[in-house]
Amino acid sequence: MTTDAGLLSPVRAGTPVEAVVDDEAWLRALLAAEAALARAQARLGTVPAEAAEVVTEVARSDVFDVRAIALAARESANPVVAVVGALTRAVAARDAEAAEYVHRGSTSQDVFDTAAMLVCARSLRLVGADLERAERALAALAREHRDTPMVGRTLALHAVPTTFGLKAAGWRLLVMDAADRLRAVRTPVSLGGAAGTLAGYLEYADPRAAPDGRAARPGPVRTGPGTDPGGYADLLVAEYARETGLDTPLLPWHALRTPVTDLASALSFTAVALGKIAADVQVLTRTEIGEVGEPAVAGRGGSSAMPHKRNPVLATLMRAAALQVPALASTLHLCATAEDERSAGAWHAEWEPLRACLRLVGGSAHTAAELTEGLVVRAERMRANLDLTGGAVVTERIAAALTPRLGRDAARESVGRLAARSAAEDVPLAELLAEETVGVLSPGQVADMLDPTAYTGAAGHLVDRALSDRRP
Amino acid sequence: MTTDAGLLSPVRAGTPVEAVVDDEAWLRALLAAEAALARAQARLGTVPAEAAEVVTEVARSDVFDVRAIALAARESANPVVAVVGALTRAVAARDAEAAEYVHRGSTSQDVFDTAAMLVCARSLRLVGADLERAERALAALAREHRDTPMVGRTLALHAVPTTFGLKAAGWRLLVMDAADRLRAVRTPVSLGGAAGTLAGYLEYADPRAAPDGRAARPGPVRTGPGTDPGGYADLLVAEYARETGLDTPLLPWHALRTPVTDLASALSFTAVALGKIAADVQVLTRTEIGEVGEPAVAGRGGSSAMPHKRNPVLATLMRAAALQVPALASTLHLCATAEDERSAGAWHAEWEPLRACLRLVGGSAHTAAELTEGLVVRAERMRANLDLTGGAVVTERIAAALTPRLGRDAARESVGRLAARSAAEDVPLAELLAEETVGVLSPGQVADMLDPTAYTGAAGHLVDRALSDRRP
Amino acid sequence: MTTDAGLLSPVRAGTPVEAVVDDEAWLRALLAAEAALARAQARLGTVPAEAAEVVTEVARSDVFDVRAIALAARESANPVVAVVGALTRAVAARDAEAAEYVHRGSTSQDVFDTAAMLVCARSLRLVGADLERAERALAALAREHRDTPMVGRTLALHAVPTTFGLKAAGWRLLVMDAADRLRAVRTPVSLGGAAGTLAGYLEYADPRAAPDGRAARPGPVRTGPGTDPGGYADLLVAEYARETGLDTPLLPWHALRTPVTDLASALSFTAVALGKIAADVQVLTRTEIGEVGEPAVAGRGGSSAMPHKRNPVLATLMRAAALQVPALASTLHLCATAEDERSAGAWHAEWEPLRACLRLVGGSAHTAAELTEGLVVRAERMRANLDLTGGAVVTERIAAALTPRLGRDAARESVGRLAARSAAEDVPLAELLAEETVGVLSPGQVADMLDPTAYTGAAGHLVDRALSDRRP
Amino acid sequence: MTTDAGLLSPVRAGTPVEAVVDDEAWLRALLAAEAALARAQARLGTVPAEAAEVVTEVARSDVFDVRAIALAARESANPVVAVVGALTRAVAARDAEAAEYVHRGSTSQDVFDTAAMLVCARSLRLVGADLERAERALAALAREHRDTPMVGRTLALHAVPTTFGLKAAGWRLLVMDAADRLRAVRTPVSLGGAAGTLAGYLEYADPRAAPDGRAARPGPVRTGPGTDPGGYADLLVAEYARETGLDTPLLPWHALRTPVTDLASALSFTAVALGKIAADVQVLTRTEIGEVGEPAVAGRGGSSAMPHKRNPVLATLMRAAALQVPALASTLHLCATAEDERSAGAWHAEWEPLRACLRLVGGSAHTAAELTEGLVVRAERMRANLDLTGGAVVTERIAAALTPRLGRDAARESVGRLAARSAAEDVPLAELLAEETVGVLSPGQVADMLDPTAYTGAAGHLVDRALSDRRP
Repeated sequence: MTTDAGLLSPVRAGTPVEAVVDDEAWLRALLAAEAALARAQARLGTVPAEAAEVVTEVARSDVFDVRAIALAARESANPVVAVVGALTRAVAARDAEAAEYVHRGSTSQDVFDTAAMLVCARSLRLVGADLERAERALAALAREHRDTPMVGRTLALHAVPTTFGLKAAGWRLLVMDAADRLRAVRTPVSLGGAAGTLAGYLEYADPRAAPDGRAARPGPVRTGPGTDPGGYADLLVAEYARETGLDTPLLPWHALRTPVTDLASALSFTAVALGKIAADVQVLTRTEIGEVGEPAVAGRGGSSAMPHKRNPVLATLMRAAALQVPALASTLHLCATAEDERSAGAWHAEWEPLRACLRLVGGSAHTAAELTEGLVVRAERMRANLDLTGGAVVTERIAAALTPRLGRDAARESVGRLAARSAAEDVPLAELLAEETVGVLSPGQVADMLDPTAYTGAAGHLVDRALSDRRP
Repeated sequence: MTTDAGLLSPVRAGTPVEAVVDDEAWLRALLAAEAALARAQARLGTVPAEAAEVVTEVARSDVFDVRAIALAARESANPVVAVVGALTRAVAARDAEAAEYVHRGSTSQDVFDTAAMLVCARSLRLVGADLERAERALAALAREHRDTPMVGRTLALHAVPTTFGLKAAGWRLLVMDAADRLRAVRTPVSLGGAAGTLAGYLEYADPRAAPDGRAARPGPVRTGPGTDPGGYADLLVAEYARETGLDTPLLPWHALRTPVTDLASALSFTAVALGKIAADVQVLTRTEIGEVGEPAVAGRGGSSAMPHKRNPVLATLMRAAALQVPALASTLHLCATAEDERSAGAWHAEWEPLRACLRLVGGSAHTAAELTEGLVVRAERMRANLDLTGGAVVTERIAAALTPRLGRDAARESVGRLAARSAAEDVPLAELLAEETVGVLSPGQVADMLDPTAYTGAAGHLVDRALSDRRP
Repeated sequence: MTTDAGLLSPVRAGTPVEAVVDDEAWLRALLAAEAALARAQARLGTVPAEAAEVVTEVARSDVFDVRAIALAARESANPVVAVVGALTRAVAARDAEAAEYVHRGSTSQDVFDTAAMLVCARSLRLVGADLERAERALAALAREHRDTPMVGRTLALHAVPTTFGLKAAGWRLLVMDAADRLRAVRTPVSLGGAAGTLAGYLEYADPRAAPDGRAARPGPVRTGPGTDPGGYADLLVAEYARETGLDTPLLPWHALRTPVTDLASALSFTAVALGKIAADVQVLTRTEIGEVGEPAVAGRGGSSAMPHKRNPVLATLMRAAALQVPALASTLHLCATAEDERSAGAWHAEWEPLRACLRLVGGSAHTAAELTEGLVVRAERMRANLDLTGGAVVTERIAAALTPRLGRDAARESVGRLAARSAAEDVPLAELLAEETVGVLSPGQVADMLDPTAYTGAAGHLVDRALSDRRP
Repeated sequence: MTTDAGLLSPVRAGTPVEAVVDDEAWLRALLAAEAALARAQARLGTVPAEAAEVVTEVARSDVFDVRAIALAARESANPVVAVVGALTRAVAARDAEAAEYVHRGSTSQDVFDTAAMLVCARSLRLVGADLERAERALAALAREHRDTPMVGRTLALHAVPTTFGLKAAGWRLLVMDAADRLRAVRTPVSLGGAAGTLAGYLEYADPRAAPDGRAARPGPVRTGPGTDPGGYADLLVAEYARETGLDTPLLPWHALRTPVTDLASALSFTAVALGKIAADVQVLTRTEIGEVGEPAVAGRGGSSAMPHKRNPVLATLMRAAALQVPALASTLHLCATAEDERSAGAWHAEWEPLRACLRLVGGSAHTAAELTEGLVVRAERMRANLDLTGGAVVTERIAAALTPRLGRDAARESVGRLAARSAAEDVPLAELLAEETVGVLSPGQVADMLDPTAYTGAAGHLVDRALSDRRP
C-alpha cells in the first residue's frame, strides 16, 4: 500500500472532498453498487430478498483489502473482477446460497460506472456547498463595496476607474455560473450488461434461462419479463436508480460517455472560474498594489526563508488547481471517442483524471470559501492607487469632453500627448489640462473631471443588477 | 496575404462553416459590430440616426483591406484599433460628421467579442443543421436495423450479440446530446467600455460630457440617462442585443469568460461525439470485419499507391477532428483565468483556438451528415462474424443456464474451459457443450441457446425507447 | 490519511515505480534534500560536521508524520515549511545545537525541487530498466520474425504485405528513442535561496553575517567566500550535487523550468511510444484478426461477465496511460511560464502532474516489458489474413507490372477495376488478371506476382539495419 | 478560397514564418518533395534524368490551384492524391513520357511527411535566427545590468533583492535552451512506400517489375538492386535526403512519429520559455511597478479607448502564444499512438496543430527579438521599489545576523514581529531594529544591513558564469 497524504496537493489536503474520493471511498462505492444491484433485482423478484440483504450487509462491512483488489485489477484492467471475487467470498462465508446472486447478470463496467457516479454525486454536493459559501461571501463584498472606487486594469496597466463591488459581483457571477453548470450535470446509473443489451440481466429474469424451472426466479416476477424483456429492463434500471439515488439513463452508456464529458466540462469551468478570482487576488496582493489581503490566520502564508512575508497561499492553491484541471478535462473529452461497445483503454483512462478533477475542484472550492469569507479589502490603498497616475486614468473622459470641440481623433491625440508629457516631465496632468482647456472648461470643471471616483460609470447599477440575480 | 485553402484540414475544406469563420468573415463581423453599436446608440439618441446609417452602409462596403488591418494589429495586439481607424477613414470620406460617431465610447474588446459571438452564432446554426441531418439519418438506420444482429465488441474482442440498430441509436443519442449542448450555449453581446463600467458610453449620453450642451446629444434621449446611468446602460445593452440578434449578458464579460468556456465545452463534446461514430465506423470497416462501408462515391477514398483501396475517408476526417478539439477547448478553458479587467494575453489566446474549434466541428458535422446518410450496412457480414467463434459469443448465456445446477462460479469455469478447448482444438463449442450438458439440456435447447441472434436482450426495446426521444 | 492503493490505476499498481514516488517516498526525498544540504555546507565549513551528521541521521529516521505535514502544507502552499519544522524539532530532541543548522540559508523551493529531482532520477532508472527489457524482447521478436509475412494495414484496410519483423523492429526503435530521450534529461539540484541569488547561503558563509565573529562559521571555510561569494556559491552547488548524486545547474532554476519541461517531453514521448505498441497489439488481437495474443497467464484477462474472453489487458493499460500523459505534460510545459523569481501557482501546479506522469510511464514501461516478453505471435493467422482479399494486397505490384505497357494511370485504373469486380462478384482476382494479361504476363508470372509473401520489399533488410542500431 | 491574413493571430501576422508555412508554401513543399523523389530515382537510374528534370521544372511552376487541390483532398483525406493528379497532368502537357514517372512507386504519406519536414526545417531556421537575436540582446542586458539591483519577487510579494542582470541572464538561458532543443530536432525524409517496406519503389528498380525488360530502368542502375533490394533502398533514401537537404531516417516512420513528437516538444518549450520572459515583462510593466517598458514605437500599444495607455503588446502576444502551444503539442504527442502501418486519423490530426505551433513559435520568437532588443529598463524605478517596504526585503539577512545570538527560530520570529509592526504602525523597520539590536549591532551595522543593494548574494557572479556559456 502506498500513502496518499495529499503532500503534493495542498489545495485539497484535509478538505471534505478527499474522504469521498479516495481509494477506500471508491471501493465502498463499488461495493455499494453491487449491493444496490442485488436489491434492485430482489425488488423485481429475480434475486431472493434475503440474499440481497446479506449482500448489502457484507458490502458494508470492513473485510475488504483495497490493496489486494488494486493489485488484482492488473489482471483484468479494472478492479471489478476482484471486487466481485472478494465480495462473493465474503458473502459465501456468511451464506453460500446468497453468494450465487452477487453480480448476477452484470458486467464490470456497470458496477464501475455506477460507483463512479456515486462518488461524483457526493463530491458535487460538497463542491456545491462550498460554492454557496463563496457566493454568499462575494455577495456581501459586492454589497459592501458597491461604491468603493478602485482602478480598473487592462493589459497590466491602469485603464479607467471601476469599483471593487463590481469586481466582487463579477467573481460571484462566475461562482454562480459554476454552481449552475455542476447542478445541471446528470449522474445516471450504468446498467447495460456485457455489451449494453441487458441480456445478462434478462437471462436470470426469463424462464428460458432456467431450463429446470428452478432457482433462477425464487420469487414472483412482478412484471412479465418473459413476454416483454424491455419492460423488465426498464423496471430494473428504474429500481437501480432508486436504490442508488442516481439518475436514469436513456440508454446504457458504456460507450456513450456524455455523463463523463458533462462532468469534465462543468468541473473544468469551476476550476477556471475560481482561478480567475485567484488571479485577481494575486495581482491585488502584490506588494506594490496591496489592495487586498488574504484572511489573516496565525502562521498562514509564512515563508521558510523570509520572516516578513505573508504569502497569498489560498489564491496560489486555487490558481494551481485552475492550471491543472483543463488538461485533465481534455483527456476525459478525448476518451469519449470510445470504440466498440466498450473501449480497450479509453474507458480506463478516465478514472484517474476524473478523480483528479474532483479533488482539485473540491479543494479549490473549499479554499475559495475560506478566501472570500475572510478577504481583507483595503479601500484606502485602492483610493491611493487611483491617484498614482495623476489623472491619467480618466483620459478617456477628458477626451470625450473635448470631442465636441476638437473632434474625436484630435481630442484623443491631444489628451494622449498631454498624458505622455505629464508622465515624462512629472507635471500634474491637471495643470497641463488647465492650460489646454482655457475657454472650454472652467478650472472647476477640469478638477471635477479629473476626480476618478466620479467616473465609475454604471458600476453601482451593475452591482445591483447582478446581486438581484439569485439562483436555486 | 497568405492563403488558407484548407489544404491541411480536409475535414472542413469547402464545407459551409469555412465561409462564415475566415478572416474576411471575421472582419465583416467586426464591422457589423461597430455598425450595430452606432445604430443602438442612435436608437437612444446619442448618435444621430443619419450617422448610424452612414456607418452601417460603409461597414458593409468592400473598401477594407483585411491584410493591412491584420498587420496593423501587431501594434495593439488586437485588430480593432485598426478596424476603427479604417472604418473612420472610410466613413469620413463619405460624411466627415458621421465619422465622429464611429466606436463612440467603446473599447476594442466590446467590438471584438461581439463580433466573435456573431461568428459563433452563425457557425452554430450551420453545425446544428448538419447534426439534424445526421440525427435523421441515424434514426432511419436505427429503425431499419432495429433487429439486425451483430456482435458486440468489448476490449477489442467479441463479447455478446447486440444489434446494429442499438449501435445506431446510440450514435443518434450522442448527436442529439451534442445538438442540445450547442443549443444551450448563449452568445451575448459584449458591452462594457474600457473597464467594464460602461463609463465611456455614458459619457456621451450624459449632459456633463458636453460642456457646451451641444453636439453630444444631437437628438432627444428617450430615457433619462443623465439621472439614471444604469437605466441608460441597460437600454444600450438591450438595443445592442436587438441590433445584433445576440443575447443580453448579466454583466460585461471582458474578464468573465463563461460564454467562451461554454462554447468550448459544447464544441469539444460535439467533436468527440462524432469521433465516437467515426471510431466505430473505422473498426467495422476493417478488411477482416467489413460490416459497414462508407458511402460509395466515384473517386472517393482512393489511395495514391494501391488501386484496390477504398479508404474510410469520412470517418478518418471526423476522427482527426475529434483528436484535435479537446486540447483546443482546454486552452479556451485555461484562458478564463483572465486577470484584471482585461487580460494581457489570456484574451488574445482565445481567438485562434476558438476558430479552429468552429472549423473542425463544422467540418466534422458536415462530414457526419454525409457519412450517416450514405452508410452502407452489410447485415450478412454482421451475421457471418457472429458465427466466427462458433458460439463463444453466447458463453455468458450458457453459463447462466448452467448456474442453477452448478452454481455461478463452477458454471462460468466450466463454460470458460469448454470455450478454450473449442478454440484450441478447433472443435465446435456446440459439440463440447452437448457432451457436458447431457441430462441437463436437450440437444435442441443447446442449439437454441447457441443461436446468437436469439440473445440480443432488450436491444430492440432500447432502440424503440431511444427513438421515442425527440428533441426540438 | 487517505489511501492510495492504485485502485484506479492498474497500469502502475504494484509496479516498481509506485514505491519511489508515493507520499512517503517524496517525504523521504525532502528530508534527504535537507540532510544533503547540511552535509554540503559542512564540507565547506559553514555547518559543523557533527550537526550535519545528526541532521542526516534524524532525516533518515521514522519519526515524521506525512499526513500532519501534508495538512500543514495548506498554510504555506508547499510542504517544506512543515518539513523544516518537523525536522528541526526532531533534531533538537537529539541535539539542540544541531537544530540551528537545519535548512540554513535555504528556501522551500530549493528543497522541494531537489527532492523532486531525486524522485525523478530514481523513477527514470526504473523506467530505463523496463525499457531495456522491452527493447531486448522486441529485438528477439524482430529477429525471429524477420521474414514472417503479414498484411500491412493503412487507414484500417489491407494495404500491401509487410513482415512482423519490421513491425517489431519499429516498436523497438520507439522504445530505444524513448530510452534515449529519458537518458538525455538532466536532473539538477536546486540551490538559489530565497530569490535565486544564494544570498541566504552566503550570509552564513560570510564574516559580515556574524557581527560578533562567532558561531556562524564553526570551522574553517576552505575557500574564500568572504572575498569571493561566487566562488563559495559554486562550491556549495557542486558539493550539493555531489551529496545528492544530481546534476549541477548553470543557474538557479526556481523560475527557469527547463528540467521539468524536458522531463515532461521525454515522459510523454515514452508514454505514446508504448501506446503505439499497445494500439497495434489491440488491432492484431481483435477476434477477426487474431494475429497476436497477450502472454497467457492463468486468470489474466478474464471478464466479469463472459467466460470465453481473454482480454488484451496489458495493451489496454498501456493505451490508457498513453491517453493520459500528453495532457499532463502540457500542464508541465504551461507551468514553465512562471512569473517572477517564483511563481504563485505555476510552480505548485507542477507537482501532481509530474508524479502522475512518472507513475503512468513507470507502470506502462513495466507492463510493456511483460507484454513484449510474452507476446504470442500467430504466423499462421498472419498468413491466412494475407490471403483474405484474394490478391488485392498486391494490386500495387500488378499495376507496376502493367505500367510499362499501359502507362501508369491506365494500369492503376485497370487493376482497380478488376479488384472491385473481384470483390463484387466474388471471383478470384487471379482469374480476372489472367484474362487481362494474356500476352503480357504468363500465367506463372501472374501467379508469382500474386504471391503476397514475395512482395515484402526491403522489409528484411530494414529489420537488419534497425537491429544493427544498438544504443548505450 | 478563404483568406488567412493573420487577423486573429497578430503574434505572427507579417513575421517571416508566415510565408514559409501557409498553404501555398505547403503546396510548394509537396511539389518539391515529388520532384526530389524523381531526381533521387533518376540518380539511381530508375527514372530517366530528362523526366526528372521536366518534373522538377513543372513542380516549380505556377500552374497549380491550391484551392482545387484542398477541395479534392476531402476525397482521399489528404492532399497528395490531388497533387499527384495535378502534377501529372501538368507534366504530361509538357512531356507525356515524363508524366509516367511522377510519384513512381510512392505513397501519399512519403510525400506529405517529407514536405512537412521541408516546411519545418525552413521554419526552424527562421526561429533560430530570431532566438539568436534575442540571445544577443539579452546577453547585452545581462552585462549592462549585472549590478542593477531590483527586488526579487516570489508568490507575488517582495522577497529579497536580486539584480536585473540575473533576471536577464535567466531569460537568455531559456532562449539558449530553446535554441538547443530546436537544433537537436532531426527532420528526416519519409520514404517507405505503401506500407513502409519500400516495395513500390523497388518494384520499379527490379527487373522482375518490367516483364518486357524495357522502360522501367531506362538507365544503368548504379548498384545492384535486383540482387540486393536493401542496398537499393538505402541508396534511394540517401539520395532523397541529399536532394531535399533533409536527414536520413533509420526506418520509414509513417507510424513511428518520433520526428513529430520531438518537434512538438521543442516548439512547446520554446513557446513557454518566451512566455516566461513575457510574464515577467508584464509584471514589471504594471503601472504600480514600472520597472521596464516595451520598446517605444510611434503608435505602438495604443488603446482604442484610453489615450494615455501604452500597452505591453509584444509581451501580450508572446504570452498568448505560450498559452496555446502546449495544448497543440499535446495533440501531436497523442497522435503518435498511431495504429497500424498508417493511422486512420492520428496522422491527419497532426497537420494543423503542427503548423499552428510553427506559426505561433515563429511569431513569438520574432516578437521576442523585437522586445528584447528595445526593452526599456528603468533602474531608478527598480531602486525605488526596493525601498518600498522600508527594509522588509532584507529581513532574511537580519534574521541571519541575529541567529548566532537568538537562535534560528527566535531570530526569525523576532524579525517577523518587527516587520509586521513596521507595516502596521508605519514605523520604519530600521528604527524598530535599532531598538531591538542595541548591544548586538551598532547603528551603522544595522544601516549597512538594511541596504538592499548590498544583499544581492552571488547575483553578479551568476551573471558572469551564465554569460560565459556560449553555444553554437
